[in-house]
Amino acid sequence: MFSQADFVHMERALALATRGLYTTDPNPRVGCVLVKDGAVIGEGFTQPAGFDHAEIQAMKDARTRGHDLRGATAYVTLEPCSHFGRTPPCANALIEAKVARVIAAMEDPNPLVSGRGLSILRDAGIDVRCGLLAKEARELNIGFVSRMTRKRPWVRMKVAATLDGRTGLPSGESQWITGEAARADGHAWRARASAILTGIGTVKEDDPRMTVRAIDTPRQPKRVLIDSRLDASPLSQIFVGAPTLVFCSKLDAATEERADALRARGAEIVALGNEHGKVDLPAMLTELAARGVNELHVEAGYKLNGSLLREGCVDELLVYLAPSLLGTQSLGMADLAAPASLDARTRLAFHSVERVGDDLRVLARVVQPEAHDEHGEPDTQDAQEGDAS
Amino acid sequence: MFSQADFVHMERALALATRGLYTTDPNPRVGCVLVKDGAVIGEGFTQPAGFDHAEIQAMKDARTRGHDLRGATAYVTLEPCSHFGRTPPCANALIEAKVARVIAAMEDPNPLVSGRGLSILRDAGIDVRCGLLAKEARELNIGFVSRMTRKRPWVRMKVAATLDGRTGLPSGESQWITGEAARADGHAWRARASAILTGIGTVKEDDPRMTVRAIDTPRQPKRVLIDSRLDASPLSQIFVGAPTLVFCSKLDAATEERADALRARGAEIVALGNEHGKVDLPAMLTELAARGVNELHVEAGYKLNGSLLREGCVDELLVYLAPSLLGTQSLGMADLAAPASLDARTRLAFHSVERVGDDLRVLARVVQPEAHDEHGEPDTQDAQEGDAS
Repeated sequence: MFSQADFVHMERALALATRGLYTTDPNPRVGCVLVKDGAVIGEGFTQPAGFDHAEIQAMKDARTRGHDLRGATAYVTLEPCSHFGRTPPCANALIEAKVARVIAAMEDPNPLVSGRGLSILRDAGIDVRCGLLAKEARELNIGFVSRMTRKRPWVRMKVAATLDGRTGLPSGESQWITGEAARADGHAWRARASAILTGIGTVKEDDPRMTVRAIDTPRQPKRVLIDSRLDASPLSQIFVGAPTLVFCSKLDAATEERADALRARGAEIVALGNEHGKVDLPAMLTELAARGVNELHVEAGYKLNGSLLREGCVDELLVYLAPSLLGTQSLGMADLAAPASLDARTRLAFHSVERVGDDLRVLARVVQPEAHDEHGEPDTQDAQEGDAS
Repeated sequence: MFSQADFVHMERALALATRGLYTTDPNPRVGCVLVKDGAVIGEGFTQPAGFDHAEIQAMKDARTRGHDLRGATAYVTLEPCSHFGRTPPCANALIEAKVARVIAAMEDPNPLVSGRGLSILRDAGIDVRCGLLAKEARELNIGFVSRMTRKRPWVRMKVAATLDGRTGLPSGESQWITGEAARADGHAWRARASAILTGIGTVKEDDPRMTVRAIDTPRQPKRVLIDSRLDASPLSQIFVGAPTLVFCSKLDAATEERADALRARGAEIVALGNEHGKVDLPAMLTELAARGVNELHVEAGYKLNGSLLREGCVDELLVYLAPSLLGTQSLGMADLAAPASLDARTRLAFHSVERVGDDLRVLARVVQPEAHDEHGEPDTQDAQEGDAS
């Protein structure tokens, strides 16, 4: 179904898409390669929201280089859009340019529009194929896919621990367990996220800024704080700079003064309580998705980590393992009770493991009980379809 | 100093040496390749103790294939022996065969004999070089090197844990945390060890056989049990089969009856107590080295693991990490107190990380405080010397 050349061009389109890793939010990262008579005539990737999509960039690139687009093949890592958003639809632009073929890595994951862009192209007589390197394309936009299909962000929980699973001394001392390379790598993961989430415990103990610093990026992720009773000091570093979103359990006469003090620091306060007087975490994820959050990067402490895991609000653990041991009295990764039996343990699937400096970086996906076999690999079938050449 | 061809032949010699991984004990694993006029004319590796060394095997192989050894080059992964042990010295055999060159990966690590084999060869007019792929050769015989240079075995502690560092439920349930592939891999590490060490806690709880079963091997490692007060039931599985070595803290009237019951099951009892009424672990390592133990494979529980770590008796952690979480009330890897500060934590260096089935296998070396920079990489200099080509 796909030729060797098709794979090469789509791999290039994916590489281009990756250039938008830190910048396209809340839009997906998309790459486009235009090929005519076997030669690449134009390349592009999604520009920041409100600016050109990948296809438009690639067409502009080709025209700048003096090429006629008629009869060309467009390789795009995501189905071209068919609707007027902040920019006109890319499908129409491809039709007007009279390209002959469009090969997409995957359909738009939004079930309401999925396939419409491809249909418009087919109706215009263009040869359209879909599914080439679909798995890779989906990985690149795992948060966008999650928001579109599940109405919640892809939640990635970062933990830095020793090989024996400890995140700090009993005294709370935890800086620094991992090395400089791991900390910089952690900032790269912050940079690709739409938002960074932390809890009041971490704010009180470490007073972090929760910004991206070790990595050069033109966009800072939104900062989100869970603070049920609005205990945060308005002087906390997390309120310095761009407005921070604070979730509390309720806004009433008792909390109004503290809420106002935080608002004076630019914070937006959202009350979203559950029956235990805590923030309703699944509802918070829905709210964040509604606000366009694709990937949510969590850097929190023992308690909030435990709550998020227990309430099924974590998709992936990003664990930096340091080459050391801290012993059994030291802090664990998350406030998670022992299961009644080994069978009932929280199951994960290792997605990747890499050395980062002297440390290891382990990416492990949570296997949700209701989707035991599929969660880690939602697109195995697509990948296989795109595999033959 | 070394040509590309030299590297190729020494790599082959190392591959041959690896064939003796389970069988040469207590001798080192050695491989030999004989090359004449650019062609390999003979290959060999160390046979079980009392039988041919690698060089003799390679010479026999070459002669069987009708080759004249005069003028050949011998690639050996360890300096040829110069003494009469259970077999005559290999250096003499190489001289009698009139080989022209001998390239050794490393000298014999025994400081009493180191270099003598090479000297004998040089004195006979043979062109002798040493240090090619020395690091790899040393790794292959890390236990033999340890026994020769430190008078103690290389101690490798195996642990199976979840990603959050837990080895079992609070109830003690721990079978199985890792998958079948990891368990089989664990048996391969047992098979290469001279001896397998466990403690009375594990014998009481799990009653393990501590034999190699998942892997095909003609040699079973010696089994060693630490049982300070000789509490083990004579009916324990660890006493079934070949004699087990039991270390207790003292033999007196109170323990004599229990000692006799274990002896009746074939056990050998050695009393080696410290001032706390426990087995003197460093002294035990010395005793095991004196008995020819190169690699000591530890599969013990929380308490003995902690004692071994605290007393500086562990060189390497062989950790299988399962893709799951067991929560903070669950059992940790070792009874190790939290350090007074992060700086005082037990430091490791990651040596390798591999996926094994659904699990990860992490090999991490203990960085001994007294040899901070060197312990994990004792032979960096050798490796560099052998690196130029």
